[in-house]
Amino acid sequence: MSEPTHHDPLHFDAERSAEIVTASFAGATDERLQEILASLVRHAHAFVKDVGLTVEEWAAGIRFLTETGHACDDTRQEFILLSDVLGVSMLVDSVNRPSDGRFTESTVEGPFHLVDSPARALGDSIDEAGRGGEPCLVTGRVTDGDGRPVAGASVDVWQADAEGFYDVQRPGEVPERNLRGLFTADEDGRFRFRTIVPRYYPIPSDGPVGALLKTTGRHANRAAHIHLEVSAPGIRTLTTHLFVEGSPFLDSDAVFGVKESLIRSFAEVDDPARATEHGLPNPFRHVDFPITVRRGAQP
Amino acid sequence: MSEPTHHDPLHFDAERSAEIVTASFAGATDERLQEILASLVRHAHAFVKDVGLTVEEWAAGIRFLTETGHACDDTRQEFILLSDVLGVSMLVDSVNRPSDGRFTESTVEGPFHLVDSPARALGDSIDEAGRGGEPCLVTGRVTDGDGRPVAGASVDVWQADAEGFYDVQRPGEVPERNLRGLFTADEDGRFRFRTIVPRYYPIPSDGPVGALLKTTGRHANRAAHIHLEVSAPGIRTLTTHLFVEGSPFLDSDAVFGVKESLIRSFAEVDDPARATEHGLPNPFRHVDFPITVRRGAQP
Repeated sequence: MSEPTHHDPLHFDAERSAEIVTASFAGATDERLQEILASLVRHAHAFVKDVGLTVEEWAAGIRFLTETGHACDDTRQEFILLSDVLGVSMLVDSVNRPSDGRFTESTVEGPFHLVDSPARALGDSIDEAGRGGEPCLVTGRVTDGDGRPVAGASVDVWQADAEGFYDVQRPGEVPERNLRGLFTADEDGRFRFRTIVPRYYPIPSDGPVGALLKTTGRHANRAAHIHLEVSAPGIRTLTTHLFVEGSPFLDSDAVFGVKESLIRSFAEVDDPARATEHGLPNPFRHVDFPITVRRGAQP
Repeated sequence: MSEPTHHDPLHFDAERSAEIVTASFAGATDERLQEILASLVRHAHAFVKDVGLTVEEWAAGIRFLTETGHACDDTRQEFILLSDVLGVSMLVDSVNRPSDGRFTESTVEGPFHLVDSPARALGDSIDEAGRGGEPCLVTGRVTDGDGRPVAGASVDVWQADAEGFYDVQRPGEVPERNLRGLFTADEDGRFRFRTIVPRYYPIPSDGPVGALLKTTGRHANRAAHIHLEVSAPGIRTLTTHLFVEGSPFLDSDAVFGVKESLIRSFAEVDDPARATEHGLPNPFRHVDFPITVRRGAQP
């Protein structure tokens, strides 16, 4: 038998397990990858030790990951869904786009920004289907941290309909790119468009992630929201949601996308003159969403 | 806008992110699952924060997991391979089967215990193919923590051949269940069998896990070993390896399976009388592997 060499780092030892595995990556030329793997290994090993993971539980984890992988195809990304329901997607967003209170907060982009939004004129309606729903006027103004308007800012919007479906979930039933629009703010940074109030909707729940939610007593719903992506030369692109005050699930959004500052009243307006001015039936709902963006290069 | 309710735990907040997500599992009826998810979320969020994971790095992680899932099928388990090369499999083994120094140490079972080993008589050869390799005698004795023999213990063995392949990797080329054997120890706990010295071999490296090893400058090889699984009524089943002293990769086994105490000399014996006694050519190699098992129920 060979003489034991207790300081050889690559013979397994439960006490030093993360250190041993991290040492195996010492030859990696990509230092950032090495740093990420070291942290990943440290946390994965601490998790196993902290909970005293049994062999059966480990095997159940392997099965879950395998099923999640098999649920992924060209149109479905079950691992992103897993990241979403574990709050990891929102955390990655926050880590990369911290808000200091002066700027409009961001949220995740989500999986439905699949197609380019059609360019539309300020005041246009994005509801091409006309299948019902509460008529709504959305107004806003894009300014920078000093309150100066961002003239000509691009405001890309997309949303679910009054039954909780995006256009891409209803191919053939609704016009392509229904409830999507790419607007250009005016010289004063202002934008406006007509739409219908979106409904809350469930994330796909017929796969392993849905089974996890069910097993743990969680629902699969997202609170009602309109997606906005605001960009302009010289500002950092903002990806966010505008949440409908009073929507179910604001306090338990399945992907943790809700931030207090993004919840807005979609107040009822009963004013025939204003309705006519905007080309809306009376009464209608109105939400105003002032947006403050950060000047500077993309990170 | 709704009044902010700063103590609502399910609106996202980067500082308290793990706490918020853990609270979402409060309705789970399975307390153990709740405990595991809480630790998983805590470590996953700490990992993202510790390294400051970028959106691009997160996306690369999603892609890697998806490819790993797609590489899994009925005959290949790429997630187990990932667990192996990150040392997680060995850690789970250690957490569940701690050694206090008195008992023979365990290692992982590995993916090649696919078929039942054929029952063989003590002293039989497990090398049915006869395709070459160094002839070898393996002897051992199974005792308990007090040094008492475990009469009639089952000793299940399987190994790669002199070129580093298991029978299941060479269907049609070698007899089925070649280099596998199920032996029954005698009244004194002793067992012996003839075989050939196994060679080191690479784990499957044509998938995402192989790509990870390559990118990080790691090789895919396992040090040469014979697998043993020792069981008997009233003792805890031991799954371990017997490593060949002097094998390449003992200090860098790709799955971290090596423990000092499991490395043994396969010493050359030049003794025509002993060779004849055991039905082996002269010279031959001999390894003795005393095995100490723990009495008690399976955990």
